[in-house]
Amino acid sequence: MSARIPVAILGATGSVGQRFVQLLAQHPWFEVVALTGSGRSVGQSYAAAAHWVIAEEMPAWAREMTLVASDPAACPARIVFSALPSAIAQEVEPRFAQAGALVCSNAAAFREAADVPLLLPEVNPTHTAVVARQRQQRGWPGAIVTNPNCTSTGLTVALKALYDAFGLQAVFVTSLQAVSGAGYPGVASLDILDNVIPYIDGEEAKVEWEPRKLLGTVGPQGIAAADFRISAHTNRVAVSDGHLVCVSVKLGRPASVAEAAAALRDYAAPAVCAELPSCPRPVIRLRAEPDRPQPRLDRTTGRGMTTVVGRLRPDPLFDLKFVVFSHNTIRGAAGGSILNAELLVKQGLLAGEGR
Amino acid sequence: MSARIPVAILGATGSVGQRFVQLLAQHPWFEVVALTGSGRSVGQSYAAAAHWVIAEEMPAWAREMTLVASDPAACPARIVFSALPSAIAQEVEPRFAQAGALVCSNAAAFREAADVPLLLPEVNPTHTAVVARQRQQRGWPGAIVTNPNCTSTGLTVALKALYDAFGLQAVFVTSLQAVSGAGYPGVASLDILDNVIPYIDGEEAKVEWEPRKLLGTVGPQGIAAADFRISAHTNRVAVSDGHLVCVSVKLGRPASVAEAAAALRDYAAPAVCAELPSCPRPVIRLRAEPDRPQPRLDRTTGRGMTTVVGRLRPDPLFDLKFVVFSHNTIRGAAGGSILNAELLVKQGLLAGEGR
Amino acid sequence: MSARIPVAILGATGSVGQRFVQLLAQHPWFEVVALTGSGRSVGQSYAAAAHWVIAEEMPAWAREMTLVASDPAACPARIVFSALPSAIAQEVEPRFAQAGALVCSNAAAFREAADVPLLLPEVNPTHTAVVARQRQQRGWPGAIVTNPNCTSTGLTVALKALYDAFGLQAVFVTSLQAVSGAGYPGVASLDILDNVIPYIDGEEAKVEWEPRKLLGTVGPQGIAAADFRISAHTNRVAVSDGHLVCVSVKLGRPASVAEAAAALRDYAAPAVCAELPSCPRPVIRLRAEPDRPQPRLDRTTGRGMTTVVGRLRPDPLFDLKFVVFSHNTIRGAAGGSILNAELLVKQGLLAGEGR
Amino acid sequence: MSARIPVAILGATGSVGQRFVQLLAQHPWFEVVALTGSGRSVGQSYAAAAHWVIAEEMPAWAREMTLVASDPAACPARIVFSALPSAIAQEVEPRFAQAGALVCSNAAAFREAADVPLLLPEVNPTHTAVVARQRQQRGWPGAIVTNPNCTSTGLTVALKALYDAFGLQAVFVTSLQAVSGAGYPGVASLDILDNVIPYIDGEEAKVEWEPRKLLGTVGPQGIAAADFRISAHTNRVAVSDGHLVCVSVKLGRPASVAEAAAALRDYAAPAVCAELPSCPRPVIRLRAEPDRPQPRLDRTTGRGMTTVVGRLRPDPLFDLKFVVFSHNTIRGAAGGSILNAELLVKQGLLAGEGR
Repeated sequence: MSARIPVAILGATGSVGQRFVQLLAQHPWFEVVALTGSGRSVGQSYAAAAHWVIAEEMPAWAREMTLVASDPAACPARIVFSALPSAIAQEVEPRFAQAGALVCSNAAAFREAADVPLLLPEVNPTHTAVVARQRQQRGWPGAIVTNPNCTSTGLTVALKALYDAFGLQAVFVTSLQAVSGAGYPGVASLDILDNVIPYIDGEEAKVEWEPRKLLGTVGPQGIAAADFRISAHTNRVAVSDGHLVCVSVKLGRPASVAEAAAALRDYAAPAVCAELPSCPRPVIRLRAEPDRPQPRLDRTTGRGMTTVVGRLRPDPLFDLKFVVFSHNTIRGAAGGSILNAELLVKQGLLAGEGR
Repeated sequence: MSARIPVAILGATGSVGQRFVQLLAQHPWFEVVALTGSGRSVGQSYAAAAHWVIAEEMPAWAREMTLVASDPAACPARIVFSALPSAIAQEVEPRFAQAGALVCSNAAAFREAADVPLLLPEVNPTHTAVVARQRQQRGWPGAIVTNPNCTSTGLTVALKALYDAFGLQAVFVTSLQAVSGAGYPGVASLDILDNVIPYIDGEEAKVEWEPRKLLGTVGPQGIAAADFRISAHTNRVAVSDGHLVCVSVKLGRPASVAEAAAALRDYAAPAVCAELPSCPRPVIRLRAEPDRPQPRLDRTTGRGMTTVVGRLRPDPLFDLKFVVFSHNTIRGAAGGSILNAELLVKQGLLAGEGR
Repeated sequence: MSARIPVAILGATGSVGQRFVQLLAQHPWFEVVALTGSGRSVGQSYAAAAHWVIAEEMPAWAREMTLVASDPAACPARIVFSALPSAIAQEVEPRFAQAGALVCSNAAAFREAADVPLLLPEVNPTHTAVVARQRQQRGWPGAIVTNPNCTSTGLTVALKALYDAFGLQAVFVTSLQAVSGAGYPGVASLDILDNVIPYIDGEEAKVEWEPRKLLGTVGPQGIAAADFRISAHTNRVAVSDGHLVCVSVKLGRPASVAEAAAALRDYAAPAVCAELPSCPRPVIRLRAEPDRPQPRLDRTTGRGMTTVVGRLRPDPLFDLKFVVFSHNTIRGAAGGSILNAELLVKQGLLAGEGR
Repeated sequence: MSARIPVAILGATGSVGQRFVQLLAQHPWFEVVALTGSGRSVGQSYAAAAHWVIAEEMPAWAREMTLVASDPAACPARIVFSALPSAIAQEVEPRFAQAGALVCSNAAAFREAADVPLLLPEVNPTHTAVVARQRQQRGWPGAIVTNPNCTSTGLTVALKALYDAFGLQAVFVTSLQAVSGAGYPGVASLDILDNVIPYIDGEEAKVEWEPRKLLGTVGPQGIAAADFRISAHTNRVAVSDGHLVCVSVKLGRPASVAEAAAALRDYAAPAVCAELPSCPRPVIRLRAEPDRPQPRLDRTTGRGMTTVVGRLRPDPLFDLKFVVFSHNTIRGAAGGSILNAELLVKQGLLAGEGR
């Protein structure tokens, strides 16, 4: 690949937008040519408009870039990464697909559509097969692909390893989620210091459905959800980055802790994913310590792309209990969208490429 | 009751011991006549030996009290409240029972014995019936009664209301527990700042069993556990006081959210409990807001004795989901032991009283 | 006082407004007859419009009160407590003074005016003498009185005791301030978890000047600032309530630690203040422990109205070092305004009363 | 340098010991040949004995290393890094110096001795001149060199730049220090959640003296402290890593903010330091934002070795105010000792080398 592919970041000033900027700072395939902002910030330099909240320094090239509107005319990019709020994504992302761009979206707006892939390349890279149908049905030269909610992400990676090996019937899930998942300013400090908020608007419905689409199958009508059920409790805790999820699973067929451990430990990314620059290495890290994973200690595993699993043990009601951890703004948001883009490039699905 | 009953606090310098001191500061029935400490601290004033960690000021009478050994000879008390570590409680508490004292213990040492009541007076006050058997079998003029683990406590109060109304088959539980539950110094700050620890040694086994004993029945062999099952995930979070528990229940017979809400809201303490000075008022507070209970806002409900329930809603796998909150060092520890003592006094079960 | 005085709270939905509601819930002299909100919330019930962030339960009478506009016509009150943002206070408060109300303001808008008292009744109750001048100059039947910034408050109470006893030449101050001082939503959780923000906009200028006005003298031109200088560093830390301030002072004449301790410990409120319902009791609590005051342990001292001083010791550069603690939303905001109102009532300075 | 120099870490299981392990994992000059522990842990593997608390993964080579006693006979190392408690360091470190090792100590035990360098290579590399005198006086073939307290470290780097340019008369300092500075388990979580502890035992005396030795001069009697005075307030806050210090300075001669900014920005490491592998690059980072430095955002600057300065502005009492930030367990502890060792190697001061 001689020249890098021009990409844009929609909604670049928010916390997920910032993570896109940081992760794309030195990407081998992609070159950021446009950053978009909302009304007020258009025309300002990125350094002036963004209240930078992540620990890595803002890249020098981004500082001086002038924010443009979230409009295809202003963004000469073949791929756009969307960190837009869902209500805005609903209107803006189709315009980019219509204009020929591949939209890799972190927004929830199109996740439920049967012709829009909800994608984790280490889990379901074949779901991009519906892009052709999407293009045909909607008349878009470009396309929209989505990555799941940050809590669904790590959960689904772990479930995938078990689903392939033993099948799944039912899943109980309780999340303890970081504040960065709510964006910036997001959660008020008065609400979270010395506190837990046992509620995140709309989150439980997503966690109860997205893993089923991700483990579903591509059929003539698009993607059909897998046939198991999930119950989710979602909570916000005083953690900066990284979502921890307690899981109990009823498998399709019984499995010992040792068998399940092997299935998790040995889970490998599909070949098409394994070669991508941002592929998690390893996909799953299974820890043996009784008290891991923990956000402060495990959030940088595999540069934030690896799903960390621990505390695998029998469950008195179902088959197994365990804890899953995933970095919510890297694997669960910006890093996930970037990995999706890499997959579509690899699969030759950029607009104007044959397949 | 003309004169107050002399009581002692075993292990008075730790965090639960301190809570006993604070709650007994002006008790209408009880007068603290002895505070015990471990080897090093015996002979020191309480003010010198205790690193006070609770927000209410140390009572003046306690400051100058000299710590004595955890020995019946040193404690001229009819009731002793035990905040001892379990390993020590195992040896020390029987000596007090042997010497004629009623031991109201927060330790786990004797909770599993079929002839030792595991007691929440608003739930199972009739379980004190096994005290007679305990005295006969063990030859003790006194007795040991216990209160459950701090996480089991609020959970069981909420389950009781549903159990009475609809029966119970299965319960999924995930706790988010405060650091004060681990005593002092307890959890190191490096382990909990910007972090969650998804593990508390021995906790899950307690939470999976204690509610079943508490909802069990008194039979000829002592207390028989109720016939339902629990799966528990327990976590430590960056909260000072108050345990929050996410619960999914499969009932004995179906119930709507409205029916369950009524059962929780209307749950009343048994008559014998309702008259006790420390009886929670109300026993259960059902909140309607979507994001309550929260530790920072709900921990003082009913002076820390009320169980707060919220987010009652349907569960996709079982029948209902909800969130339970309880103050872990008040209702879940010291306040619970004091309420137990009040019950036994009311029931005439102090040593030397007929029944 | 047979009937209670009707009062209103301007800006009642914010965090300081909520504290006014809570503190006035059972006030012996005042009865809340109106709560005001901003455009959107007018016409809503207080329960619906206010995101309640303080641990004490919202009073029942407040829940159903309908929010009105911040306009004298809508608020039939003789005293109004203002929790308005300064820019709005600048316009709205004079209208209430013009309409005959006594405005007790927590806003910074009028603090610097020489004819507006900046008032701590335990420090400078005689400064209300300028109210007459204010009425005459501005043609207001009512008046505006202000309370200082939350960090200035506790600092000045401690300085007053030393100033009276020894005089003051110079003061170094570094604050560690709670997030509730920034209102709600105020500080974003991402900005304060595992962090310190060494900057609070406009705060240092207030802290460097307000204590000098508070310790100043009433002269023919209004209040003249006291003649000493202050240097302030202000910081935001991960604390919910209560500001802690490290202070080094150069006195007017040398004093030993013991002499300074006596001056602080013995400092008594002026007689006119001592009888007020909200007068701090004691005004100053001097603690001897090496590691106090601390926000979590000392914030409820004197129901949040007492200034707590500790760590009094020699300073290698100046004369003395110490630490001051004060509850920022009680003594430093709503409680302070209420105490000011009580003082003016006591002094007969409500509009329409002779003096 | 063909073969790497064998080094040992004394007290390797504690939090500073762990940082030594992590920072020496791939050091170009040094090879860790021994890790020492206290009585109980000797004979165990490092993985079994150390409760690992830092976010970077424990290096594989360290996991299986067997802990030995802190005794020269057990440690065949030419350099030993000491993370021992001061009381133990007092006895153990001389034995290693006697046995010919260069002891690079993070302990306070020998910092005050006039013949022991207190060393920051970017500040006072010439102070190693007293090593010859130390060897002669004490009869040691090896030597002890020390690095300052973690709070003194960043403070002194910033003061050095100003001292060289303008001289110094007086310094006011208030620190907001991270919990990792207290080791592990160190600060109890109950003491720091929603709290500040305005006291750190022994810390203020160190901060008031160490910068004066560091900026002092080598004379015939050893090192003579510089002639200015410091007043320090030290506080513990709810931050994991990184100490923030508020500073007011009275210079030897007046300087504008612009002149001081230039002095800080342009400060360069002495030539002998600039070539060392761990030399901070840059030594000082001066930030222009109004609200920086902040621990969460600035702690990894220069891989944790750079001193970050911000908020440079005039001081109403002295000349200038500013904020200094430094990573306490990297630049302020383990990283500092390693840099010291590099300097002594560079200067040919290992035992057995001529000078």
